[in-house]
Amino acid sequence: MRRDSERSAPGQQETRAAAAPSAAAEPLAGRYRRVRQATLALAAPLGAEDLMVQSMPDASPGKWHLAHTTWFFEQFVLMRDAAYRPRDPAWLVLFNSYYQTVGPMHARPRRGLLSRPSLEEVLDYRRRVDDAMDALLAHAGDPALAGLVELGLQHEQQHQELLLTDIKHALWCNPLQPAYAARAAAAGAPPAATPMRFVAGREGVAEIGHAGAGFAFDNETPRHRQLLRPHAIASRPVTNAEYRAFVDDGGYRDPALWLSDGWAVVQAEQWRHPLYWQDDLAGEFTLAGVRELDPQAPVCHLSYFEADAFARWAGARLPTEAEWEASAAALPVQGNLLESGVLHPRAAAGATGLQQFYGDIWEWTASPYVSYPGFRPLPGALGEYNGKFMNGQWVLRGGSCATPRTHIRASYRNFFPPQARWQFAGLRLAQDR
Amino acid sequence: MRRDSERSAPGQQETRAAAAPSAAAEPLAGRYRRVRQATLALAAPLGAEDLMVQSMPDASPGKWHLAHTTWFFEQFVLMRDAAYRPRDPAWLVLFNSYYQTVGPMHARPRRGLLSRPSLEEVLDYRRRVDDAMDALLAHAGDPALAGLVELGLQHEQQHQELLLTDIKHALWCNPLQPAYAARAAAAGAPPAATPMRFVAGREGVAEIGHAGAGFAFDNETPRHRQLLRPHAIASRPVTNAEYRAFVDDGGYRDPALWLSDGWAVVQAEQWRHPLYWQDDLAGEFTLAGVRELDPQAPVCHLSYFEADAFARWAGARLPTEAEWEASAAALPVQGNLLESGVLHPRAAAGATGLQQFYGDIWEWTASPYVSYPGFRPLPGALGEYNGKFMNGQWVLRGGSCATPRTHIRASYRNFFPPQARWQFAGLRLAQDR
Amino acid sequence: MRRDSERSAPGQQETRAAAAPSAAAEPLAGRYRRVRQATLALAAPLGAEDLMVQSMPDASPGKWHLAHTTWFFEQFVLMRDAAYRPRDPAWLVLFNSYYQTVGPMHARPRRGLLSRPSLEEVLDYRRRVDDAMDALLAHAGDPALAGLVELGLQHEQQHQELLLTDIKHALWCNPLQPAYAARAAAAGAPPAATPMRFVAGREGVAEIGHAGAGFAFDNETPRHRQLLRPHAIASRPVTNAEYRAFVDDGGYRDPALWLSDGWAVVQAEQWRHPLYWQDDLAGEFTLAGVRELDPQAPVCHLSYFEADAFARWAGARLPTEAEWEASAAALPVQGNLLESGVLHPRAAAGATGLQQFYGDIWEWTASPYVSYPGFRPLPGALGEYNGKFMNGQWVLRGGSCATPRTHIRASYRNFFPPQARWQFAGLRLAQDR
Amino acid sequence: MRRDSERSAPGQQETRAAAAPSAAAEPLAGRYRRVRQATLALAAPLGAEDLMVQSMPDASPGKWHLAHTTWFFEQFVLMRDAAYRPRDPAWLVLFNSYYQTVGPMHARPRRGLLSRPSLEEVLDYRRRVDDAMDALLAHAGDPALAGLVELGLQHEQQHQELLLTDIKHALWCNPLQPAYAARAAAAGAPPAATPMRFVAGREGVAEIGHAGAGFAFDNETPRHRQLLRPHAIASRPVTNAEYRAFVDDGGYRDPALWLSDGWAVVQAEQWRHPLYWQDDLAGEFTLAGVRELDPQAPVCHLSYFEADAFARWAGARLPTEAEWEASAAALPVQGNLLESGVLHPRAAAGATGLQQFYGDIWEWTASPYVSYPGFRPLPGALGEYNGKFMNGQWVLRGGSCATPRTHIRASYRNFFPPQARWQFAGLRLAQDR
Repeated sequence: MRRDSERSAPGQQETRAAAAPSAAAEPLAGRYRRVRQATLALAAPLGAEDLMVQSMPDASPGKWHLAHTTWFFEQFVLMRDAAYRPRDPAWLVLFNSYYQTVGPMHARPRRGLLSRPSLEEVLDYRRRVDDAMDALLAHAGDPALAGLVELGLQHEQQHQELLLTDIKHALWCNPLQPAYAARAAAAGAPPAATPMRFVAGREGVAEIGHAGAGFAFDNETPRHRQLLRPHAIASRPVTNAEYRAFVDDGGYRDPALWLSDGWAVVQAEQWRHPLYWQDDLAGEFTLAGVRELDPQAPVCHLSYFEADAFARWAGARLPTEAEWEASAAALPVQGNLLESGVLHPRAAAGATGLQQFYGDIWEWTASPYVSYPGFRPLPGALGEYNGKFMNGQWVLRGGSCATPRTHIRASYRNFFPPQARWQFAGLRLAQDR
Repeated sequence: MRRDSERSAPGQQETRAAAAPSAAAEPLAGRYRRVRQATLALAAPLGAEDLMVQSMPDASPGKWHLAHTTWFFEQFVLMRDAAYRPRDPAWLVLFNSYYQTVGPMHARPRRGLLSRPSLEEVLDYRRRVDDAMDALLAHAGDPALAGLVELGLQHEQQHQELLLTDIKHALWCNPLQPAYAARAAAAGAPPAATPMRFVAGREGVAEIGHAGAGFAFDNETPRHRQLLRPHAIASRPVTNAEYRAFVDDGGYRDPALWLSDGWAVVQAEQWRHPLYWQDDLAGEFTLAGVRELDPQAPVCHLSYFEADAFARWAGARLPTEAEWEASAAALPVQGNLLESGVLHPRAAAGATGLQQFYGDIWEWTASPYVSYPGFRPLPGALGEYNGKFMNGQWVLRGGSCATPRTHIRASYRNFFPPQARWQFAGLRLAQDR
Repeated sequence: MRRDSERSAPGQQETRAAAAPSAAAEPLAGRYRRVRQATLALAAPLGAEDLMVQSMPDASPGKWHLAHTTWFFEQFVLMRDAAYRPRDPAWLVLFNSYYQTVGPMHARPRRGLLSRPSLEEVLDYRRRVDDAMDALLAHAGDPALAGLVELGLQHEQQHQELLLTDIKHALWCNPLQPAYAARAAAAGAPPAATPMRFVAGREGVAEIGHAGAGFAFDNETPRHRQLLRPHAIASRPVTNAEYRAFVDDGGYRDPALWLSDGWAVVQAEQWRHPLYWQDDLAGEFTLAGVRELDPQAPVCHLSYFEADAFARWAGARLPTEAEWEASAAALPVQGNLLESGVLHPRAAAGATGLQQFYGDIWEWTASPYVSYPGFRPLPGALGEYNGKFMNGQWVLRGGSCATPRTHIRASYRNFFPPQARWQFAGLRLAQDR
Repeated sequence: MRRDSERSAPGQQETRAAAAPSAAAEPLAGRYRRVRQATLALAAPLGAEDLMVQSMPDASPGKWHLAHTTWFFEQFVLMRDAAYRPRDPAWLVLFNSYYQTVGPMHARPRRGLLSRPSLEEVLDYRRRVDDAMDALLAHAGDPALAGLVELGLQHEQQHQELLLTDIKHALWCNPLQPAYAARAAAAGAPPAATPMRFVAGREGVAEIGHAGAGFAFDNETPRHRQLLRPHAIASRPVTNAEYRAFVDDGGYRDPALWLSDGWAVVQAEQWRHPLYWQDDLAGEFTLAGVRELDPQAPVCHLSYFEADAFARWAGARLPTEAEWEASAAALPVQGNLLESGVLHPRAAAGATGLQQFYGDIWEWTASPYVSYPGFRPLPGALGEYNGKFMNGQWVLRGGSCATPRTHIRASYRNFFPPQARWQFAGLRLAQDR
């Protein structure tokens, strides 16, 4: 996603969303209520004060997420009806993220200053908009409307993940390092990770990108052909134990392992281990507070620079996004996703074969985030959703333990700048054959 | 005060405070309860979210003020008893402001990230410490204890003012510009300011500084002699109307009127009028929200640079702190102070003679904040209260509409860096004779 | 190139360079002398003071270029002989650009502080190293040596271009805006540009990248297959007149045309036209001083952001580097290159067909600078030449009016960050078919 | 002096200068030539490249000093004649330092970019202006003119000192650390410093400031009365050996010794010893290159923060400027000044009594740089010389080994910000009695 921790945008979602398999499985009105309710459930363990914190410009307060996702429906759905009166014209500015086309916006780094509207007012705003949406959806048959609503729900799901990663960073910044929720990362003995193997990937011309029914963002389209060269892809992500070996081997002290920009960040920020690891390399901060580091679980909260340096150290490389998608396309969308409630990566279960392509951690790829050939952003304001961020970011794939299951798919392209570490991001190795 | 919006520290307060006239007027235990209660009353119009906001590094969240003033009693009074168990050792770090000698401290610009402890926990902390203090004061006769308690109360009163100026800035930063309280700045037709006259000041050797009974901070001591040259001092502060004439005359566009550092700030920050004035020069933000600017009221929220430039434009100068004190010493300590509840400067009442030396606005002086000859900071950690800030700041005198009446006196020295504008600060003119 | 305005690096250059066609055309010793001499000729119009200026961290003083290119031969060629004594061990630090592996380096933004060694000492250093190289090359037959020398010469040619672009920026920063040389941009009536046409490009699988004999940098290898989709490429670059229409149409005021990062730079830097254009849009700063803008000449000194925004405004896009190379491969390497002595882009001559692929301006492409599949940087210190800069930059193709003719080829990949403007960089349009 | 390393300004210099004792000792035309010639002599050991370097925004290139001092005569003397044609109108901008009233100025931090005009052109500029001045002074009898010329010469002398301190910093920034001149700091065995004694200072009302004949800057006036309290002043400055004891005692690690702002700088800049000391505390960089530290010589290149911290550690304080002047007034103006050619502080000679008030090092005082009571800056542009810098700086007294003898006097007030270290600045202790 973008610096703004904001993104998405549908390509022709009007027609596509109508036939979305998961969305289509239930009436849109019901899906609307369930997704909106899920956001509230994620905010529930937090008080009004927790929901105020903005710990860095890249992150947003939880209250802002609650309001912004509501604004999205107000701005792009309800205000299509000229008779609709927004809750407060000033709020249209406060909760606009980055849509220059619809009007001015409150400066992103100052979102944490908004004590007003209060959490209560924002929750009331949600109810007010939900009521209006309910009325609209009661007799909906308009596919354009359905497409916009589905877009709004996918957008809301993105912010569900961001709400979690942003609050994780916020709580970690507090010297008391409080837990988000005790339930998170509950466990039992962690399973042992299966040994990593390299599995031959598909070779030659392959099609990647989204096509057909079901929702997708515009940046996943059009589906197109790519040449895949002979390669193998790792059966599972890199674990904490494996990454620890890199740290112990002086990985953070050897410039030869790093991209030049990455080495500059390592020096400036004094990086010595992944974000949230403790300096003793034995514990890590999780949404359940500080816990012992599980050596078998996928390593997490890496920047692109760290993922890339590790791969170089390991004599391997990151997969391209096309390689990743070609391998993932055949796999069922299941794994340690948001619904598991664990909110932390877990070791791969006993199964063999390709594992953990979905859930646990987003996987950095070797692909810069650029447009697919023939890409067309949506006309109008929603065209700002994805396309304008195609500079200086890298693609991540597969979703994490904080991604809703109905939000992820093989063609999904997440993106972040190379120094971003606060997402649940790790890596899987690949190699040339 | 200092960049830290924090300061004070008593010189020999142990003996002095015991005999303090205003303090002495009531038993210390009662005074303790009243001052502590007054802080809560100031926070009462604000919700937990408002009390979280830190709008700039110079300001602190209201909740932090509530906790830090409590920490002060815990750290410097209660912990003198080795058996006392602090509420939480980690809080000793969180709520230490700048006392290097007692241990590490949470970084000042990150105070706004502290969603935990919650407001409720902080209020509970206050009760817990108040109970311990009550018990201690019940059978107190120890003058050293009494001095420390009085210091803690004076410290708390400083933070009462800061709580107001900090929340004013925080609310102003919110595009909704909400009011702190409707009651503030309630009015009636504003009175007309009396015409300004220059009144001859005292000449020759005068004594300034604190001596004798009654509380004072160490930086007000020792009382010492100063040579006053022939001069006159204005009967009242400069008004909004007078300052408006400076603005209209191009005062913010003429470098010849400004100190070099001031002109650099004017350019960099694009200053065009006092902080909180609206660009139409007709309204201003107050603790009661945006109000029409009262032309008769003292101009407020000026930096030293603006006060100095105005005086130069007016063919006058700022008074020295010795000149100010020599004139103020004979006047009763009364005026539009915190207790009036107006929380905004008001036009001088009909009276003639020297007016508004106390209350309404702090008055910038021509005196850099340095030590008095023979100054000795307290030994130990409390020596950090005032002395270490004697660089790069200017003295202000007289108290404002946000200063408690039992906190201000003729010898009181407030201090801020020359670019600070968020205090209730204005000016009074002086001239050579 | 990289932030460091430094780059290159040989891919197996040892074997390749020996057979390089242009290099092979003359004995290496002669080529060495000619290239080294050309650098001195470029510095000749400048005094010791001009050669001291570092106008921004991205640029280097001319004297530093003279010394660094010499250091390159000393460090990587002469010091292979253990008996060789470097001119001064301290200079090995001063003139190392970014090779962490060979030792520490003087901080790049402080290169302009080096009044010592003097220009005279640096020229003497050049003579000393040239003498040693002459001796070495007199009886050379070692292909590894020949490869290293060719690499050093290609490196020197890169710095010839940088010497010009850096001094152009330096002279422009001087309010006197002096000319580098009167001879530059000499003219006669500028020719009229031929009308722009879109020419169908190659489609399907194409091979790009370097292979076979002749020198190439490692980042041009390995030659590999790419899928080209149906597209057309413009017959010539965008002209000043065409770009002027974009400016006049409000191109710099419409956020919808810009990448998000680009819009942020436009706002922060107040960009209103290309670098070196005057605000009246009528003149521009050239190496011959301020001249009237030639509407027919290719627009120059654009950032990637501007090139991309222009293409969007024009309803087209930038070509990918594969598309560019597929079209350029068949064209002869000729054009307005360094040897023409014009040192400024000129309008396309009367010819029809594909024009100006080589010379005049570097052309921004739609391709982020990443490794080719199967890329392997050289082992050892020279592996730092190119690979570690593969983040956050975009590829440019074709060479400019400041590029030596024996330095450019169809597979050549130049790279700069998207905000860089001080190179001779413009654009050619492309579109989907 | 000011951030600009520029200052001065005449107080009624028109009348005063005419009768200046030292100036009066020789005809003005001769003095003009001698002072101007002295500047050239100081630049003589430096090449054009050395004279280009600007190592930090606070410093200026030597060439700029040569040109600016010339501009001063052109702007303020020659251009009084409407028929005079300046050398180049653009140079009036390039070489204006900070006189907003006379027109725009080239940005200070970019002075190092001015390769043009060349050193030769600047030297020619000097000759051209000197010729015009010669003609003017040949038949001068105008006291206003004489006053302006004397001001220009005093101004030039200030820049003589700055030329040395700026080039010292520039050469030190070069890893080669070359010497300015071998002749500097020539030696023989260093004499042993006499033991430091505290000598009772004058008490009661004293007059300080300039009055009567002889040149003085406006900031030294008017002469006025001050109350001096009982105090003693050290017989000589603090030595390197004494300061070394402070370092060895952990002075740079104990926040209790430092002003708050000073401690922040110590942390941010990692100060561990005076500027130019080597980390082994055994050597120091001088204008003659790196030399062994002389334990007996006055410690030098201290910031105000370090001087103040040392005094606190020593249980003493800095003298006020009034105390200093009261002691210095009776002493002859002699010492290790510029004319000695040593260009480095030396140990006090065998004499007893008050030593080294003049020369060797500027002495930081406890006095902020503010106006004297009744101060009036000159009308017009020259009023910008001194007055506008009266914020955030501290007064230094006595001149250094780089100060011309005819430039210093008891009433002379130098001023710098508290973090400035690149001047020849040290301290003398004082204490209350």
